[in-house]
Parts: sequence; C-alpha cells; structure tokens
Amino acid sequence: MTAPTRKDLDALQQIVGDKGLLEPGEDLVSYENCVRYGAGKAAFVVRPASSAETSKVMAYCMGQGIVLVPQSGNTGLVGASTPDGTGQQGVLSFDRLTGTATSDGTTSNVSGANDKIIFDEENRSVTVGAGVRLSDLNAFLAPKGYVFPIDLGADPRIGGMIATNTGGARFLRYGDVRQNTLGVKVVLADEAGTELDFMSGLRKDNTGIDWKHLFIGTTGTLGVVTEAVLNVQRLPQQSAAALLVPRDEAAVLKLLLEMEQRCDSQLTAFEGMSAEAMAAAFDHVPSLRNPFPGGDLPDYVLLVELSRTWAMREGEQTLDELLEIVLAEIWEDEEAPLENAFIGRPEEMWALRHALSEGVKHAGKLVAFDVSFRRGDLMKFRAFMAEELPKRFPDVRICDFGHVGDGGLHFNLAIAKDDPRLNDETFIPDLRDWVVKIVVEKYHGSFSAEHAIGRSNQSFYYEYTPEKVKELAAGMKALISPNDIGVVKLG
Amino acid sequence: MTAPTRKDLDALQQIVGDKGLLEPGEDLVSYENCVRYGAGKAAFVVRPASSAETSKVMAYCMGQGIVLVPQSGNTGLVGASTPDGTGQQGVLSFDRLTGTATSDGTTSNVSGANDKIIFDEENRSVTVGAGVRLSDLNAFLAPKGYVFPIDLGADPRIGGMIATNTGGARFLRYGDVRQNTLGVKVVLADEAGTELDFMSGLRKDNTGIDWKHLFIGTTGTLGVVTEAVLNVQRLPQQSAAALLVPRDEAAVLKLLLEMEQRCDSQLTAFEGMSAEAMAAAFDHVPSLRNPFPGGDLPDYVLLVELSRTWAMREGEQTLDELLEIVLAEIWEDEEAPLENAFIGRPEEMWALRHALSEGVKHAGKLVAFDVSFRRGDLMKFRAFMAEELPKRFPDVRICDFGHVGDGGLHFNLAIAKDDPRLNDETFIPDLRDWVVKIVVEKYHGSFSAEHAIGRSNQSFYYEYTPEKVKELAAGMKALISPNDIGVVKLG
Repeated sequence: MTAPTRKDLDALQQIVGDKGLLEPGEDLVSYENCVRYGAGKAAFVVRPASSAETSKVMAYCMGQGIVLVPQSGNTGLVGASTPDGTGQQGVLSFDRLTGTATSDGTTSNVSGANDKIIFDEENRSVTVGAGVRLSDLNAFLAPKGYVFPIDLGADPRIGGMIATNTGGARFLRYGDVRQNTLGVKVVLADEAGTELDFMSGLRKDNTGIDWKHLFIGTTGTLGVVTEAVLNVQRLPQQSAAALLVPRDEAAVLKLLLEMEQRCDSQLTAFEGMSAEAMAAAFDHVPSLRNPFPGGDLPDYVLLVELSRTWAMREGEQTLDELLEIVLAEIWEDEEAPLENAFIGRPEEMWALRHALSEGVKHAGKLVAFDVSFRRGDLMKFRAFMAEELPKRFPDVRICDFGHVGDGGLHFNLAIAKDDPRLNDETFIPDLRDWVVKIVVEKYHGSFSAEHAIGRSNQSFYYEYTPEKVKELAAGMKALISPNDIGVVKLG
Repeated sequence: MTAPTRKDLDALQQIVGDKGLLEPGEDLVSYENCVRYGAGKAAFVVRPASSAETSKVMAYCMGQGIVLVPQSGNTGLVGASTPDGTGQQGVLSFDRLTGTATSDGTTSNVSGANDKIIFDEENRSVTVGAGVRLSDLNAFLAPKGYVFPIDLGADPRIGGMIATNTGGARFLRYGDVRQNTLGVKVVLADEAGTELDFMSGLRKDNTGIDWKHLFIGTTGTLGVVTEAVLNVQRLPQQSAAALLVPRDEAAVLKLLLEMEQRCDSQLTAFEGMSAEAMAAAFDHVPSLRNPFPGGDLPDYVLLVELSRTWAMREGEQTLDELLEIVLAEIWEDEEAPLENAFIGRPEEMWALRHALSEGVKHAGKLVAFDVSFRRGDLMKFRAFMAEELPKRFPDVRICDFGHVGDGGLHFNLAIAKDDPRLNDETFIPDLRDWVVKIVVEKYHGSFSAEHAIGRSNQSFYYEYTPEKVKELAAGMKALISPNDIGVVKLG
C-alpha cells in the first residue's frame, strides 16, 4: 500500500475532472463512515462518471499501488465500503456512475430511456449504471408499470446491491439480486484497469463460464461492477396481507407449506416477527398502530402478503377474499397450525415490518447477526437460542425478525446500555463467536445471508471456509483482479 | 493423453468393482454414440457408484494421464459426452451415481427418502445423485405433490442437466437449472481427485464466491458434479392452454407482455411454433389432431399455458374461464395483436409442441441451432432469416420453434436429403457459420442457449469469446481442474 501524493491526486483529477475528486479538507465524512461500524479516513474520494473513467482510475491507482475501496450507497452493514484509519486508502465512489455507455444492442427495443436508465420493455429488463439508487430505478419504472423486485429497508445503489447480492423481504417470490441480474460490466483490479462486458442481457446463454456470478456477492474484491442489465417485473396492482399467529413454533413451517400450496406464487412474502422486535418498533415509532387485541403481542407473528399484477376484474375474488378462504381452509383442520389471524391493510402491516429494523436499534446495545438456514431449521435455531442463550449469556434479549420463506434470519441481540459487561472488550466478540458457531456448526447455516463479507465478519470467513476453498479463492483473486482493492480477503 | 493399459483397467476395477467397469468387447455402443453426432471409441466405461468412488477414479486417471469424458444421460445435442475415435479416452458414466452420501444436514427435516433421493419438504428441496434421471426424480416427487420444474423433451440425468444448464419450456415461470440448483458436490480434475462440498442447500448465503456457478453450464470441464441439492416446486393441480395466432410478427411480443401482465406468474409457458415445424410434426405423428379449421396451419402459433398449484375451489374461476376473459380483454383493443385463439386440452397442445422436435428430424437433413436473443429480437431474427436465407442458401427450409417467453429459439433448417449440395463438405459448415454470425454479430444473441458447449459448437466459442475472457477461462481451468477432462476447451 502506498500513500497517495499530490501528484497522484492531480493525475486522478485529470481523469475525472473537478467534480470527480474530493480531497481531505473537503467534507468526506459521509464517505469515511458507514451505518453501523467504525470510522475511517480517506486519502481521497474519486467519483468517476462512467465505466471508462472507472477503468482509467483503476489502472492509475493499481499501477501506483494505491488501494481503492469501492463504495456504492454505503448502506451496508458489515463494514465493507469505507477506508481504514490509515488515511492512505482512496474511496472509489459510485455517486456519479449513474449513466450507461451500453446500448441495449438493438436500440429498436428501447421503449423508454433517460440519460441514466435504458428500459427494454420487450425483454423486461433495464440497463443501469452502478450508481443508480434503488429508489430512483423504481421511480423510473413505476409509471411504466414495472419494478425491480428487491424489497429492502435501505436505499442502496445498484452496484452495491450486486456486490452484496441483497435479498430482502420478497425473495420468496422474486429471488435475490443474483437471480435478477442478466448482465454486468466490470472493471478488474489490475494495472490495465481491464473492462469486461457481459452485458448481453440474454436470459438463456450457455457458452462457457457464466462470469457475472463471480462479481455478484463478492464485495468488489474480484472486480468493480460499473453497469448492469437487470430483470424487472410487472408492478403488482392488487395486494392483501395478514398477520398470522402460529399455534406454536412447529406450526410456522406448516403454515408456510400450506400457504405456498394454496396461494402458489401469489404469495409474495412470508416474514417472521418476534414479540420483542415488535415491542421495540412500537416503542420507537409511536404512530404505528398495534393491531393485536388489547395490544398484547403474540410471541411470534407472521406477515403474509399476496399480490397480483393485474387490476381487479369484475366478479373476481379479491385477494382479501382469497386470503379469508385460504385461512378458513387451513383452520378446518383439527390440528390447524393457526391460532389467530388478522387481515388488514398491507401498508400498515409493512410499516410495522419495516419499523423493526430501526426499532431494535433502540432496544439497547445491538449485536446483530444476518444468518440463514434451511427453512426448516430457522425456528429450531430460535428455540435452541431461547433455551441456551440465557444460560450462557444472561440478560441478553433476543429481538429477531426474518424471512421465514427463504430461511433468512435477522437475529438481533440487545444488551442494556449500562450493562457492565460491555466494558469487557471480549464480551461481544465471545457472544458473536458463540452464536455463529451454533449457526454454522450445529445448524449448517450461513453467517452472512444477505450482507456479504466485510470487516465485521471477515474472521468468520477465515474460520468457516474450508482450506482448499480459500486456496482456490486466493488463486481466483490472483487470476482475475490481482491488485489490492476493497477490504475483503478471500484467500 | 495416455492409452490405458491392462494394469489401468485392473486398478479401476479395484475401485469400482465388477459392475463398475465395462471394457472393450463388452457392449459399449450406447456409451460411444450420442444422439446427434458422430461415433467414438471408448477405452473403457467406468461407472462409480458414489462421489467418493468418483474421486478415486479421477485421482487414478488424472495421475496416469488418462483422459476421462464425463457422461450423464448422454441425451445432449452438441457432442459433449462421448469419447473421440482414438480409443484412448475413458467414459466416466453417471449410470450408477444415483445415491447420495450427503445427509441433509439436519436429518429431522427429512420427510421422505429412498436410497436415491432425500426430500426436505420444509426446505422445498431434494438431495440427489448426479445419475438420477429427471423422470425418476419427478416420479419420486409427484406423489408428494412436488416437481423439479425443468420441462424437457428428453429425459437426461441430473448431472448432465447441471453441466449444460438446461432450460426448457417452462423457463418463463421457473427459470433454468442454475436458478433451481441450491448446492453441488463436485470432483475436480486433478491428481488428488479433490472433492468439494457446496451442499448446504441454503437459499440465502453470501459468504464469498458462490462456487456452484462455475460448475453449472461448463460441461464438466471445471469439475464433475456428483450430487446436488435442487429446489423443487409444488406440482400444479390446474392448468389451461391455448393456441394463439398473432396478427403479425410484431404482435408476438405485444401478446407476451399482455399475457404477463394479465396472468402474472400463472403464465407458465409462452412457446412459438412455425407452420413448417407443425407440418413436420403432423406428417410424422399422424395421431396428432390438427386443431386449426380446415387443417390450415397459420404461419406462426403461440402455445400459452396457465397453471395453479391448488385444486379448484367452489365458485372460483377456472383457468379456462380466466383464459377466455384475458383473451377477450386483449381482443377489445382495436389494434388487438391477436387474430385467432383456440382454447383446448393442455395435453393435446403439449403433444403437438413436444412432437415438433421429432417431426423436424424427418423433414430432411437437419441443421439445428439452439440460439437465443433478447426477447424482442427473436421475431426480428426470424423475419430477417425468412428474407435473407433464400437469397444466400436457396431451398433451405426454416422449421423453427422456440421459447418466445425467454428468447430461446430452436432454429432448425431442413435440406432435401437428395440435395446435391450435401455432397459438398463445405456447404453445411458455411451455412452454420453464416447463421451463427448473424445471431451473434447482428442480433447480439447466443449461439448456445441451453445446450452448452460441445464438439459441435466449440469453434463458435473460440470465434466469439473475447481473447481476454478466453485467457481468464484458461487460467480458471488451470487453477481449478488442471488435468484433461471432457471434450470442451475453455481457453
């Protein structure tokens, strides 16, 4: 790693222009800090406005031994997008990477376009720059009747969504970013700043290695995605939602299987919320309506959503009616897995669901885990933890919620802010190690379901990745993007 | 490449036992020939019965410099699964690779299992050996109410489906094999016969490189998949189908977009059939009923299918009714893209669709292309070919059909068997080169949509893969599976 000099800054400014370079002394705070973890110090922030400029920046920095940390929306939760504290690393920001140099191949397909996004309605796809925000993409698509169906609490930029392969709350129906990425343009971390174009946007193409998968979910370590072709979906025009109270923990998966069969792909979400997480949300957002009789929170509640892309037809069952019928069918069974159900306005139910994340942050000192399991193991893991955590780490509250439909769990632990154990610097690391060990070794789960790898979980990567796989990953890194980039190590 | 000796055969027999090794002199014909291309000669056929045995076979052969050609169901169409004519290559058959050594992690999830297949209903997944046939998997799943939703005319084994990333006729709704593969176990082509286990079966897992994607669609060149975890879907319990006659070629994509919006994911197929392909099917299969008035075949017909996973409910619209309503909605428009429509029995319509493949084989000497496009370009390519092919190659008939919903096209050309040009050995290669050049260069399409790479399209891989990508692919091969295996070259 080399500390950038004045000469380097001038050379970068030559590439990206005045607007493209921010230097120490300017306001770099938002580039140096990320949402949840530590503070860094940037040698500079370079903001190329195109893939070609990114390539030139990369070539220059890699040639000079300057480490770049790619930064997309900087909304990640594992500390993968900010520089370290040395002041020697530059931030490669996607802020201005909102255009695309890629035509869609056959321009006659373009039925709508602005300077940022090319929409190919016939292919049901968009071509976007990595710096486009999810909300901007969806604001562009909504009037056309389409949506990029990755449903997240945060508002990241597309490049970061690809680098972390975000999943979100409607994975059950639409899949993750990987399943919705039809192509990428990528700049490799080498001294040539090699630009590779895998932007065909084809849905079926089996002509050798499908390269895009190497750049999805690998946090920029194997190359920086500068543009992408994304699959989009028709925007739903009808929806219905219910809060279901399962009879017991074992009933949760039964309900999921019943709903899947009885609603097919109209089922667009099947989310789990613990009483503790809901309580934290109600405490933190007083305007939220508590829908439960007497305000008594059930131990565990499932948010289910149905949706359809067509407008209500005359004489057709509404989705609310369908939901009632389906729940009645489930209830008919003597051993029905359902204790109670509340059909209501989807917006209100999603408001509760989306408030959980903010809510739990205020429940105490938060130790957050983004883990996943085979679907059947999620509730078993919760039950194990409810039993064992208090023995091992008393007075740590479980405030979890998650994506039961895909096995993803935001397993949050809250500790009273005045708990004296917080002064012991081994306490939280020990707690994290213990939880992750159980996730991975006892339940064969993942320690990073949808946040990918960053500083905060790098140690788990080292610990739980087989040696041979790490060796191959190191070889892959040396082959594809041999120079130092980002904060993650694969080898 | 080394010719196997008696000593080698004995060593292999030690590993796989008597049943596991077939030698020249025994009946090897079915292993030496594939459906469409040339005849090979096998030095032996080795049939390991487990992943562990495969690893030992691999280690032995790679150590001795013996080339193995992995062979799954041997139903592929690009000549990737049979030995060459030297008699020096061994066939690594998946015939007996029907078991699995992989438990599903938490055996308590297993709600059904036989010696071949482990079913995890809660996770909606199965663990299977690479040698299990698609039909056997679905026969196992059907009584449980599930299906592996890759709909093909052929009956391949799972390992080959993964190696070629097959798509099929319901891709529009369910995706390809890649999108339905949750995990693989793989044996690398190295002197250790390294076995790697990526069998967690998790739906969300972002802990570094997602290795399975390197082994999907790469024809065994980077390693041999011996077991897999597959996503399964609920088996539809209702379906409806119609044959639609579009007003003109431009109307086809309009119809697709209309159907997608008005039916949402109930739309499970949107297939295109040319008059020539249908005529060939009717000629070849006289029992097929011609559903068109007076038997007059429209120029182009779309087969659309709707389906649902639940049993018909009282008072609910049937899918036939829904189809009628939707078609009436589309017809309301003055410029309706629809000229005619026939709602009928899905089985009958699929019988026609599935007969096309056999039918066109009898239409003459067949030159077949498995190509794909952005969806909007498929009909444009057809129109271009209808115009230009007769100028360049007169008396060559286009008998195409395809997967309009995903841009895949089986572009078949038939030449009269007594055409004297067939005696000119450059005629067919010139024809193939010309078509592929237009697919790739003019329409930015793929020369292998769902058959992957084999001997018959290796030259197109060389020609149309950028140099830098080939260089990286060669590096990848050297890194992961350095020894010689299979017939495909990536570098």
